[in-house]
Formats: sequence, structure tokens, C-alpha cells
Amino acid sequence: MGKNVLLAQSGGPTAVINSSIVGAFEAAKRSGKVDRIYSAVGGILGVINEELIDLTAIPTEKIQALRFTPSSGLFSCRHVLPEDMNDEEYKRIFEVFEAYDIGYFFYNGGNDSMDTAYKLDKYAKMHGIDVKVNGIPKTIDNDLFGTDHCPGFGSAAKYINVTLQECAHDTFSYPNSKTVIIMETMGRNAGWLAASSCLAQYNGNQVADLIYLPETTFDLDSFLGDISDKLSKQTMVFAVVSEGVRGADGKPYFSSSKNTQDKFGHQQLGGLAAVLADEVKKNIIKRVKTVNPDISQRCASHVMSLTDYEESYLAGAASFEFAANGISGVMSAFERLSDDPYKIDIKPLTLDKCANAEKMIPRDWINENGNNVNEKFKAYALPLIQGEVAIRYKNGLPDYFVLDKNNIEKKVLKDFIK
Amino acid sequence: MGKNVLLAQSGGPTAVINSSIVGAFEAAKRSGKVDRIYSAVGGILGVINEELIDLTAIPTEKIQALRFTPSSGLFSCRHVLPEDMNDEEYKRIFEVFEAYDIGYFFYNGGNDSMDTAYKLDKYAKMHGIDVKVNGIPKTIDNDLFGTDHCPGFGSAAKYINVTLQECAHDTFSYPNSKTVIIMETMGRNAGWLAASSCLAQYNGNQVADLIYLPETTFDLDSFLGDISDKLSKQTMVFAVVSEGVRGADGKPYFSSSKNTQDKFGHQQLGGLAAVLADEVKKNIIKRVKTVNPDISQRCASHVMSLTDYEESYLAGAASFEFAANGISGVMSAFERLSDDPYKIDIKPLTLDKCANAEKMIPRDWINENGNNVNEKFKAYALPLIQGEVAIRYKNGLPDYFVLDKNNIEKKVLKDFIK
Repeated sequence: MGKNVLLAQSGGPTAVINSSIVGAFEAAKRSGKVDRIYSAVGGILGVINEELIDLTAIPTEKIQALRFTPSSGLFSCRHVLPEDMNDEEYKRIFEVFEAYDIGYFFYNGGNDSMDTAYKLDKYAKMHGIDVKVNGIPKTIDNDLFGTDHCPGFGSAAKYINVTLQECAHDTFSYPNSKTVIIMETMGRNAGWLAASSCLAQYNGNQVADLIYLPETTFDLDSFLGDISDKLSKQTMVFAVVSEGVRGADGKPYFSSSKNTQDKFGHQQLGGLAAVLADEVKKNIIKRVKTVNPDISQRCASHVMSLTDYEESYLAGAASFEFAANGISGVMSAFERLSDDPYKIDIKPLTLDKCANAEKMIPRDWINENGNNVNEKFKAYALPLIQGEVAIRYKNGLPDYFVLDKNNIEKKVLKDFIK
Repeated sequence: MGKNVLLAQSGGPTAVINSSIVGAFEAAKRSGKVDRIYSAVGGILGVINEELIDLTAIPTEKIQALRFTPSSGLFSCRHVLPEDMNDEEYKRIFEVFEAYDIGYFFYNGGNDSMDTAYKLDKYAKMHGIDVKVNGIPKTIDNDLFGTDHCPGFGSAAKYINVTLQECAHDTFSYPNSKTVIIMETMGRNAGWLAASSCLAQYNGNQVADLIYLPETTFDLDSFLGDISDKLSKQTMVFAVVSEGVRGADGKPYFSSSKNTQDKFGHQQLGGLAAVLADEVKKNIIKRVKTVNPDISQRCASHVMSLTDYEESYLAGAASFEFAANGISGVMSAFERLSDDPYKIDIKPLTLDKCANAEKMIPRDWINENGNNVNEKFKAYALPLIQGEVAIRYKNGLPDYFVLDKNNIEKKVLKDFIK
């Protein structure tokens, strides 16, 4: 078995994705079983292109700063490995693994990244190569199958709730102005982020009067009816919509660029709040405000959830520990033991069980009308936003860390041209 | 002279406006010169409608929470007092003052609010009424005349920079995807907020490649030229635009609802980033992201500037101290003594000098091309975002305070019907 570790990240960033990487890094270091710990620049593409950086050469203080830095600190990519296991790409990847004496590869990402880790583990096993490959989950969308929740979700949820709560204070400060506020959250197929907004409170009451999720059917007339109905009883109405809400045909209700799809066949979403605000202005009331935290909801490390930050670290550490115990082809999955007191366990889940599968909000956590969530959802979400992380500031701004891409080593001389 | 104090807020909220109120409240309390300290619900309209709450009856712990609560905690309004000093409204206001034995009235707001304070002081002096009326400045726009800077600006600037810095980490995590990011900030006539974005850094470099301000002329072709030019030399381009940028005709380049104006004759702005993003997509590159912190930039108390938080408190306290020393008709103004070490003094500025006057960014703090700011601006802005405030959290979210409007007293029996 190789003596070295290789870490990489892919997919969309989160506030705590680097906490997972530092968790894996420090667990490997502590173990005394490994020599070098490398990172690939830009996910699996960084492996293919042989852009590796020796993290063991970086001062401890910088690694500490990496832990609270948002977004993929090792740089990310969106790349799908070929279905054909005989493809040259696999040969190339394992050639790089060999050149760097890699015995452990950890891939930190969402559904698509778990698919990559699954394929690499399969290839290694098929060819009798002793490289342990495990996945470290992350996604603000919280839609990975087989885990109670995903690292990154709690911090995104906290940011959304803090933002919504502050917007409520802003809006209620004009007590006599009837106003509709529409907040849009990310969430392609699953509504976890939109649903999480149920936690924000103003004066002891839930801020979000209405929450619309991809798990139920979105209908413009019902939406406008809901707004009118609330507005007949109260001065302010707060509606939160998931960008991925779907019509009766099961297709996204709105896509800002309906003809463009990303490499994975996903439609580009976003901009729904503005569209709905126009409808409310046209049909009900002129005073409508939109709040779209956009990419901030996935990278706001300045207001991370301490629970999320620590669990992400532990998920990273566990992925190494599983590998050190000979377990390969698994993702670190959270199992919830109890809500109150909140307690979880981290278990290995075989990657074939989670790759490309999506987890939706159970229907019985959503109210009957499909326009809000209930106490079951709240009991689930509340523990995940607990605690604050005092990150380091410098000159009034977070002292985030950026990896120096000039430190790339070159061992495999020939370039890979596919 | 009356024994009691009346506090009120008006105009758009800030993250630290309540810190000013608590500053005035505690200075009055400490002085031993006053009996009751009231707040009016919803600014001067709360006085006219006789909706007063006795703040002295509120537990200290709640007042402490009020201090870190965003947005006008006493509730706000937008109301202009009549130019005709014989109008019934003035009589009514002073009738309420008399009924509550008010000897001190402090109005916490922006340009329009200083105008209200100015008129009330003038009325009192005209009629020989011994009520001291002072203004406590606040505005994230930082455009009040006669003060080095305004309470609220530093925190908004900090939020904008933290957000921009985090978005930079998010964007740079895909190192090979050419991307244009357009961030929009508030700022109707003056570009202070957009300009403040010059402080955000990624890997030691300024994030904002381009900054467009109302102080210079905005031209779409030049804007697109600037973007193209930067994009020919680098992978990511960050442009920050003030919502109030103006064309060669001096009119706002973009208004989302060109035909609607607020009570003060201001045009409703906002949405410029999306419009410019469309132009960039049409003419240059498809991968464009927008960031619009919208109302969050004025109410994000969770990431306040400690400097701003403390200065706001002192501005409030000073307004009482001026009044206690017999000075009426002034605003607490900041005078900067030095940038480094940063040092200010708080002085009384007569309200006729600041009411309705606007302060723009000096032309020599902006670069020659008018598409960024220079070191002079940075030296000005940097001290204002320094320090962090550890606010209190409860159940994972800020433990903000809401004033109970059920505690309103009624002393003047007859209603005021104009």
C-alpha cells in the first residue's frame, strides 16, 4: 500500500467543506501511518492533469485558516468519469496515484462526486490496486441519500435564517406598510434549504408564512391565493420559495435559461423570486421585496453553524479512519441517535448506495396544503444550526486562506492528452 | 423645562441605529437629570398619533438586546413635516410633548430626519418652548453633510466586503471558468457603499476590479469595454455597481419602476446588476453571476463593525449631552483627527447646515477612468470596518429584541385628525 494521502474536492462549494478536508488531513497526520498528504488542484481534473500540492509543507497556522475558509479551498471542478471502466482516464488517474505513492484518496463533494469516488474504488478493486477510496459528503442541498443530513447544510440553513430574521426586522420597522417579501433559496430537486427557513423568528413567531418546495406541486394561482389570504389577515407576508419548485408536469416552474444545461444535464435555475414578485405586483400589491442570498448561502463562513463545522471535520476524519481500518468505497454518513439532546453517530455507507441517489423531504414533514413545514421538520433542522464559530479576522475582514498554486509538483512527465 | 426624554427613529434602517438610541437612553439615565425616557412608535408619526412607550420600564437585559438588534427598533416612518410652520401638525406635536413633560427630543435618521429635527427646533425657538431637539445621524448611504462619516455606513460596508470576499472564494474555486461577477450596492446619489467594496481581498489582491459610482458618468459601452479589457487579461472579473449610477444626462441609468417615486420624490432604484448581467451575456460572455445584498446590507447586525457600533452609541450619547448643556438644533457630527491611528471627535453641527444636503465622494478619491477608487478612499474607509461585535444568540439565531406595541400610553385624549 502507498504511504501517501490525496485529498480533493468537487462540485459546488459550502462554508464548511474545508473543515472536512482539515479533518481528514489531521486524522491522517495523527495516525502516524502516512508520509505525505497531497491535494489535487480542482478535483479529479487536478489528478488527471497532475496538479498536486503537498499540504504537509503548509504551516499549521495556514491549515487552521483553511478550516474556516469558505468554498472549495483545494479548488473544485465538475467532471464525470466515463462509464466505460476501460477508458484511458482511469489508467491516467492510477498512474498519478502510483507516481505519488498514493494509498488513500478522499473525494469531498455531493452526489456527482460520490459517483466519482464509487467508480475509482470499483476500478481499484477490479485491478487489485491497493488504494482506499472514500467519499466525504458535502452539499448545502442536503439531498445525499443514506445520511441523516449533509455537511454544509447546517451552515447554509443558519445563514438563510439569520438573513430572513434580519430582513423581518427591516420590514417590520415600517409597521403600517403592507408588504410582501419573497425569499428565494437554492435547492434543485429537494427543498431542504427553503424548508430550513422555518426556524427564523420575529417576536417569537415564525417569519416564513409560506414555504414552497420542489416536493409538492407549485401552482401560480394557489401561490397568489395564499398571499392574498395571508394579506387579508396581516400586514406583512413572508414567502420562501425553493428555486426548484415544480409544476404539475414535474418540471421546474422557472428556469432563467431554459435552453442551457450544465454537464450533468441539470437546468440552470435561479431568479424565481423576481418572477413571482412581478406576479404579486401585477395581481395583488405593489410593495413587494425580494431577497435572494444566491451564492452567499453556500459560502458564508462568517456565520457558520458550529455543529456543522465540527461535524464536517469529523466526517473528514472518519473517512480516513475507515480507510486506515481497511474500509474502502464508503461515504461517512450521519446517523441521528436523538433530536433532544442532539446526538449523532458517523458510519460508513457503501458508495453504491448513495451515488446519484437523492433524498427528498418526507411528505409528512410538510403541511397538508403543501405551503409550509411542520414541527417534525423543525425538530430535525433545529439542532443543525446550533452554535457559532469565532473565525479569525484581519483588518476588519475574515482572514481566509488561499492555496498557492505555484507549489505544484511534477512527477509524471508525460502529459495526458485524451 | 420638561423632565422627560423622547426618542424616535425615521427613514431606512441600519444595523447600528439602535446602538445610537441605547447610547442616548443610557446617557440620559446616567445624567440623573431626567425622569422618564419615552420612545415614539414609528418616528414623528408616532408622536402625532400619540403612540409612546416608556422605555424606562423595560428590563436592562432587553435594552442590551435592543442595542445589537438591527433596523429601527422604535419603528420607523417616512414623513415630511409641512413647510408652513403654522400647520396644525406642529401644534399637535408640541401638545404631545407637553402632555408627556418632554424636555428633550432626539430624532435618529438620515437627511430627511435631520430636516424634521431642524423644523421642530425652529418651531420651539420661535414659540419660546423649552424643548431641546437634536439629531442623531444614521445612514448606510454615508451621504450626510458635515460629518466625516455616518453611523451605519461602517457596518454596511463590512457586510458588503465580507460578502464580496466570500463570493470571491466561491468564484475562484473553479479556477478555469471565465466568469464575470456583478455586485450591486445601495446608494441613491452618492457611491460610498459601492466604493467601500474596494476593501475586500482575495489572496492579497483587491477583489473589485471595477467600481462604478453615481459621482462619475456611467456609460454602457465603456462598462462593456472595461469588462472585455479585464477579461482579456484574467479569468475572473468582479464589477461593483452603485444602484444610483447616472448617465451623461445626470439621471439614474436604471430604475426598476421609472414611474414610481416615493414621498420625498426619490425614484425607486435596484435591479441594475441583473440588467447589466444581461448586457454582458449578450455581448461578451455567458457565465455571469449577480450578487445583490439588497436590504441585508442595511440590517446585517450579525456582522457589524465594532467601530461603527461603538461610534453610533457615542453619537447617541453626545446628542443628549449637548442638550443637557443647553445646546439644541444640532446633529452629532464626527470629525476625523487621524486615519492611523484612527481617532475621531464628536461635535455639534447646527442642523440647518446638514438637513437635506448631500455629501459625495471627492473626485480625487476616484481613479482617472472613473471606474475604481484609489488609496485615498481606502485610507478613509478601512478604519470604519474594524472590529467585530459578539452578539447574543439563542437557539442558533441572533437573540434580537422587539418592542411591545401593546405598552402604549394615552395621555392626550382627543385624536388628531388633520
